[in-house]
Amino acid sequence: MDNLDLMKQISITSPSKIVLLVIDGLGGLPSPKTGKTELETANTPNLDKLAAKGICGLIDPVSPGITPGSTPGHLALFGYDPVKFNIGRGVVEALGIDFSLEPEDIAARGNFCTMDKKGLVIDRRAGRIATEKCTELCQLLDGLAIEGVKIFVRPVREHRFVVVFRGKGLAPEVSDSDPQQVGMAPRAVKALNPQADRMASIANKFIAQAKVTLAKQHPANMVLLRGFSRRPNLPTMSEVYKLKPAAIAAYPMYRGLAKLVGMQVLETAVKEEFTTLKQNYTDYDFFFLHIKGTDSAGEDGDFNGKVRLIEEVDKAMPALTSLEPDVIVVTGDHSTPALLKGHSWHPVPILLYSKWCRTDGVGEFSEQACISGGLGRFPATQVMPLAMANALKLTKFGA
Amino acid sequence: MDNLDLMKQISITSPSKIVLLVIDGLGGLPSPKTGKTELETANTPNLDKLAAKGICGLIDPVSPGITPGSTPGHLALFGYDPVKFNIGRGVVEALGIDFSLEPEDIAARGNFCTMDKKGLVIDRRAGRIATEKCTELCQLLDGLAIEGVKIFVRPVREHRFVVVFRGKGLAPEVSDSDPQQVGMAPRAVKALNPQADRMASIANKFIAQAKVTLAKQHPANMVLLRGFSRRPNLPTMSEVYKLKPAAIAAYPMYRGLAKLVGMQVLETAVKEEFTTLKQNYTDYDFFFLHIKGTDSAGEDGDFNGKVRLIEEVDKAMPALTSLEPDVIVVTGDHSTPALLKGHSWHPVPILLYSKWCRTDGVGEFSEQACISGGLGRFPATQVMPLAMANALKLTKFGA
Repeated sequence: MDNLDLMKQISITSPSKIVLLVIDGLGGLPSPKTGKTELETANTPNLDKLAAKGICGLIDPVSPGITPGSTPGHLALFGYDPVKFNIGRGVVEALGIDFSLEPEDIAARGNFCTMDKKGLVIDRRAGRIATEKCTELCQLLDGLAIEGVKIFVRPVREHRFVVVFRGKGLAPEVSDSDPQQVGMAPRAVKALNPQADRMASIANKFIAQAKVTLAKQHPANMVLLRGFSRRPNLPTMSEVYKLKPAAIAAYPMYRGLAKLVGMQVLETAVKEEFTTLKQNYTDYDFFFLHIKGTDSAGEDGDFNGKVRLIEEVDKAMPALTSLEPDVIVVTGDHSTPALLKGHSWHPVPILLYSKWCRTDGVGEFSEQACISGGLGRFPATQVMPLAMANALKLTKFGA
Repeated sequence: MDNLDLMKQISITSPSKIVLLVIDGLGGLPSPKTGKTELETANTPNLDKLAAKGICGLIDPVSPGITPGSTPGHLALFGYDPVKFNIGRGVVEALGIDFSLEPEDIAARGNFCTMDKKGLVIDRRAGRIATEKCTELCQLLDGLAIEGVKIFVRPVREHRFVVVFRGKGLAPEVSDSDPQQVGMAPRAVKALNPQADRMASIANKFIAQAKVTLAKQHPANMVLLRGFSRRPNLPTMSEVYKLKPAAIAAYPMYRGLAKLVGMQVLETAVKEEFTTLKQNYTDYDFFFLHIKGTDSAGEDGDFNGKVRLIEEVDKAMPALTSLEPDVIVVTGDHSTPALLKGHSWHPVPILLYSKWCRTDGVGEFSEQACISGGLGRFPATQVMPLAMANALKLTKFGA
């Protein structure tokens, strides 16, 4: 019996409310000058007060040493084993542009690339063409139908696009056409099992058609496809936890992830997340509130920018705490230290506040302080069971 | 997907170097007089300095409460699930004498024993005959060939020996001949599945032959065999981690274990390990450096001896740190408290140093201090993922 089966068995509906505040890329590394991380540098009186009233710890999104992408980082926070539910690249890209994937659709990530006269790839990213150019090229390819399979081609950014195949008899087990290095010809898409023969054939016909359509374009005269995948059939959070969950996230990728697990996605905008929470507070019993800026600042290596954004979240906290949710969880989906300019494997600080949380001695919300927290260090997939328990939404297991 | 599959998927080759220093049986228990363990008693300025710069914690080699043998203790440190890869007794004994097992060989652990005139075992260890006598008796039995199966019989120590069967059509699924108690006759070896019929038959013929050969010996007039097993087919560390790994271990057992996971075993001697590291430092990107003495002192109940040996390791540390490896891990394969005179289940202190380790407040390397370490308490199988991450040898998992 896994985590989700256990939750299904013992979760109950109750009026109590849970708010899960995800500060994307929250964890950091200390600045060599001050010895303090971004979170430790930020002035966060409200989060510190909540840490003092609550219980703290550190979570591993996947497991020690593993740097997660946004998808596994969030799935784990929602209680889904991120290794078991490893979501394909094509699906992730489709989620990222808010494309409404149907259950049987197959999505692939596409690159516009440059091919020379011999048919060899000389630039896998076609000189990173402008997003406007990408949009224009996608329009040339969008809406094709091949043997009854409808094909959607949608721009992502620069040379990146998504292609979605919608039709009967398709299967995602096919190889990439992207050779992943220059100086080689694009590969034929191959079926990795007999059920995927039709998918491979349709994909190759699409690629052949794209080659013709793009022949006179420069530098983007060819496409490379990879990560063919189908939206996984995840049990919804309502099925698992008997919650009525809502997502408050301004960026498409996170809205898409929330939809995957059956959350109602509320309309919001950057810096409007806390207002949206207040406006919809009576209608749901679980809120996933996502703050993106911190991760972007970390990826840009902007230590001070990340500090400022954490301080902004802290200033907004009274708007959350004044609603008096039964359980408040504040954490991140992974660490994004400005020093590493990217996601990292470091465990993420977490604080949980509820009337029943058995508080510890931690009086501030920081990486260092969380080491001594009463929650210890634990897998992110256990955050939801803890939140549910503290909301008194779980019955006893076993007699 | 298990740990190793995940590592296979995301590991990359890079010039960074990892040194894993295993101080065998490192963890201890406090002396009733001083309240301090062996490690806490030892004067270890270099390890303490490294702990202050690094991050500390406690590892469970198998899981809380489980006392591991040397094999599971080391396999876990190398990232291999020690319960899944449970290596048979025969193979472990063969590794222990540096016998070069071929993939199809079947090894069994042997005892010389004393049998009375009725054919009942009256001493399972033949009065613990001297190793010299054991060697002599092994020579009488070594080199037999039965139905095309070549049989190697090699002494271990006292009454213990290894027998290796090399030939076609053998399988390890056979029962022991050792009845495990006195007053009973040796058992016939039985096939536990039809594929093992030939192995059982050959083993029984070997035992019958040994009985004849040893008939006039006293007290060692018979053999008992157990733990028939084949060298497991472990994925190598190169396959899993894309490392070029080297082992620096003076004792055969640990050299054998290192070979099992595909390490290059370097020539070294006791107290020469750090010199060997320096001499070979440019040629590999991963070093397993094994210190045996601490475990032996613990097994002998020699508290002060273990303290002295830990201090010797500490004195040698500058030879390691001056090489400036990107990642240094110092830990043990299990605890061997002098007070228990044997391996124990207590978690083992670990320190990890790298530029990216997010240091904690721990300023000394000891069982007590490690409780508050930023690594927390975690399974030993996660040590390699952590070391790899800190060496920037892992890419992101998932999109």
